[in-house]
Amino acid sequence: MVIRKISPNLALDHQVSLRQAAGERIVHLGFGEARLPVFPGLVERLVAGASRNSYGPVPGHPGVLRAVAGYFGRRALPTDPEQVIVAPGSKALLMALQFVVPGDVLLPAPCWVTYAPQALEAGKEVIPVPIPAECGGVPDPDALREAVRAARARGANPRIVILTAPDNPTGTTATPDLVRRICAVAEEEDLLLVSDEIYRDLVHDPGFEYLSPAEVAPSRTVVVTGLSKSLALGGWRIGAARFPAVPMRQDVASVASEVWSTLAGPLQEVAEYAFDEPAELVARRDADARLHGALARAVQDIVVKSGALSRPPTGGFYVYPDFEPLRAQLARHGVVDGASLQDHLLTRGVAVLAGEHFGDDPGALRFRAATSVLYGNTAELQQEAMAAADPTTVPHVADALAVIERAFTEPGSGR
Amino acid sequence: MVIRKISPNLALDHQVSLRQAAGERIVHLGFGEARLPVFPGLVERLVAGASRNSYGPVPGHPGVLRAVAGYFGRRALPTDPEQVIVAPGSKALLMALQFVVPGDVLLPAPCWVTYAPQALEAGKEVIPVPIPAECGGVPDPDALREAVRAARARGANPRIVILTAPDNPTGTTATPDLVRRICAVAEEEDLLLVSDEIYRDLVHDPGFEYLSPAEVAPSRTVVVTGLSKSLALGGWRIGAARFPAVPMRQDVASVASEVWSTLAGPLQEVAEYAFDEPAELVARRDADARLHGALARAVQDIVVKSGALSRPPTGGFYVYPDFEPLRAQLARHGVVDGASLQDHLLTRGVAVLAGEHFGDDPGALRFRAATSVLYGNTAELQQEAMAAADPTTVPHVADALAVIERAFTEPGSGR
Repeated sequence: MVIRKISPNLALDHQVSLRQAAGERIVHLGFGEARLPVFPGLVERLVAGASRNSYGPVPGHPGVLRAVAGYFGRRALPTDPEQVIVAPGSKALLMALQFVVPGDVLLPAPCWVTYAPQALEAGKEVIPVPIPAECGGVPDPDALREAVRAARARGANPRIVILTAPDNPTGTTATPDLVRRICAVAEEEDLLLVSDEIYRDLVHDPGFEYLSPAEVAPSRTVVVTGLSKSLALGGWRIGAARFPAVPMRQDVASVASEVWSTLAGPLQEVAEYAFDEPAELVARRDADARLHGALARAVQDIVVKSGALSRPPTGGFYVYPDFEPLRAQLARHGVVDGASLQDHLLTRGVAVLAGEHFGDDPGALRFRAATSVLYGNTAELQQEAMAAADPTTVPHVADALAVIERAFTEPGSGR
Repeated sequence: MVIRKISPNLALDHQVSLRQAAGERIVHLGFGEARLPVFPGLVERLVAGASRNSYGPVPGHPGVLRAVAGYFGRRALPTDPEQVIVAPGSKALLMALQFVVPGDVLLPAPCWVTYAPQALEAGKEVIPVPIPAECGGVPDPDALREAVRAARARGANPRIVILTAPDNPTGTTATPDLVRRICAVAEEEDLLLVSDEIYRDLVHDPGFEYLSPAEVAPSRTVVVTGLSKSLALGGWRIGAARFPAVPMRQDVASVASEVWSTLAGPLQEVAEYAFDEPAELVARRDADARLHGALARAVQDIVVKSGALSRPPTGGFYVYPDFEPLRAQLARHGVVDGASLQDHLLTRGVAVLAGEHFGDDPGALRFRAATSVLYGNTAELQQEAMAAADPTTVPHVADALAVIERAFTEPGSGR
């Protein structure tokens, strides 16, 4: 065991709680949660699934495996149900994969906070590779090739690359060209691609040309997904994976059988309904994606207006600003790196997570802002944001955006 | 990763399916599941918990931690909620414990099928220790001391002992005297005790004096439990653990945060209700325990009548016969070990799991019979068995018992 520290999310939550207890207003952009109410049809299926109190097959009941296979089939990935598994969260599947696939792990830097600790837990080395200028969620293809060769030259065994599209933390989505270039490196260097597509259904622009590496390199790509983000079901813990072939599914099921047995029966009933993608659910999901896009772009606009940089967000509910152009002004206030920028913004009423927590350069003035928390903390406020033609004009949303604008656009003025 | 084979349960299920497809009637005593309907109050809480779609704290919401602490408090184990965690099954918690606690693992032989693969998964050595004559679920105390010393002498590092009471596979429950003797060895040899008490509320005799090692050796005992057995909720995946102190809880929570995040919100609501032990739920649970006892004793009677041996079952829903006294008769039919006895009984219409799958001597003529499957495969049949004053006389139950009696009492007659 390797990692035994308090997570940066929890540490930030604690700081926010202390400030709130002292009467401060904090716009908390630190937590990557969809923060929307449960769609009623999902609750109906949860109830219908209550009688599923038997253990059942480890990978999942035939119905849910068929549904997940159909979901991938509609995304240009023809899938046999035997290639599929469901689990209590895609995180559990990513962890099991680390246990069954040998070799060290290449990660885009920055990337989601959990990939590196999981790789370390499985006794692997983590090899960070910078993301390209266009978008995050993938390593720069040339840098990837170099990193693989350099690692091999010093005796490491890089075999796995994790990709995320749309990406957490950058809120951007790899272009088809980039995906093809990554797949080409994977073929050349014999790497397994793990494509985390948990935000796939939250691409903001329905016209965006999404390409999964599983389409380009089907024999060497595992796809993981889940309902936590696209259906705002983080607390229900439903994940799924699609393997290039049945044996790897069996290996992961073997780990599953020793760790979590299977996804809870009632949640398998939910998953079967959700992965079948009935029209009413898809309508809600698409509306949510538009809402996420509107708020991510609103925060992006504030970033740009403040003189900072940020790749335009294209999916999910994140913006990843870079305050490098304001380094001189910020330095006058003691802000010299990501950590001090995070602290500085917190004193100005906005909680964010510095880039170093995502494996980015600690010296960079970068951080992730999760924009979905802007919808509000109650189902009522969230419904209001969902119902609005322009959610940025809903009073509680506009109010929070104003706090962010003050914090970002006068970064050196103190308070 | 160490273990990548099909589980003996699944292999047996497959054999049973083939025979059933060929028109044979098989009484399937191979699967350790409570096989009873869900209590309606639990379904109500599942529905009430549907709005819990946020991630929430990794160890569990304050309400469920308070409920679990209260549950242990009513069992002479005063507990701070900070000592507690809930998870998708106690299996996940047992696995996380293997990751966070260093040292090799001592197991009673026989014991539950999952302890050894988990220990191997965590890179540990497994040291089996025979159970005493009185009951299973604990190693013989003197043999335990010897095994620890012998293991240390050859360079191993035995530090963890797993206990199960009531026990799977033997259906017996460690006596207070045995528990005290095990705790004394643990003190002498500085061992951590992991007490798997998932069958605790299914002791058949309400007057049985149950002693948890956590009462005797509180600073060195972890207790794990769950609702899969006592409330027939295997498919809902709800487990809990109580640690001797907060730091170990934090270490396990750290693994949880990288593997399964947290128990699904709706199931936390269920767990809060269940661990609070309302009277109506306790009444159902106690009735289930009596039912389990009645059927386990009925099968035990058949075993004894057949001339075989078996420790009288005292908890859960298992009987663990030893056909050693019939070895000569069985040998004439090619039955010379556990595997051939399992095959032989299957040809006679009864599916059981040979002792070797639980870490017992492969040459021994021992097997586990899970008696809870006798209630029937539908909620209607199960209700009938639950409602009967003497469940052994309910037609479908009596019929299955007759099949078992034929298979066990004429073991050498072929068919």
